[in-house]
Amino acid sequence: MSTENRDTIYIGKKPLMAYVTSTLIQLSNSPQVNIKARGLSIGRAVDVAQIVVRRSDSRHSIGDIKIGSESLESQDGKKRNVSTIEIAVKRNN
Amino acid sequence: MSTENRDTIYIGKKPLMAYVTSTLIQLSNSPQVNIKARGLSIGRAVDVAQIVVRRSDSRHSIGDIKIGSESLESQDGKKRNVSTIEIAVKRNN
Repeated sequence: MSTENRDTIYIGKKPLMAYVTSTLIQLSNSPQVNIKARGLSIGRAVDVAQIVVRRSDSRHSIGDIKIGSESLESQDGKKRNVSTIEIAVKRNN
Repeated sequence: MSTENRDTIYIGKKPLMAYVTSTLIQLSNSPQVNIKARGLSIGRAVDVAQIVVRRSDSRHSIGDIKIGSESLESQDGKKRNVSTIEIAVKRNN
């Protein structure tokens, strides 16, 4: 597993606090974690980043935020664009 | 109405293309428009920003992206935090 993968949390269908916990554990090992999501999970990625920063008494802060889109093939064979987000959460020293 | 309000598009329950159109109209009048959303509309705000930038042949680009949270009182009287996003879309000169 590459360094990039270990420092990235992909947001899916698990309970929100599972991702908050994973993010906090990663932040104890590395100075920055990227929270990534696409489509309907984008709002949840923002929730996770906000919870991590708000609950940690200014030990963490939000870094760069990037948005983009990915082309996915849906079940009927058509191409659909899905929005993506990547939120960096940094450990303050 | 203040200048800030005129240059802000709030994402709600209308069809996505209604917000795309509003954003493009505002961008013809002002060099930057802020797309704001909270909660479940956050993913749609990213969709609107991406559509505006992708369909405009590099005439527009994404600027600063900010996330935050707001405290709302729900119907049972409890306080809930709702995540927010603000995406700047700029006109390229």
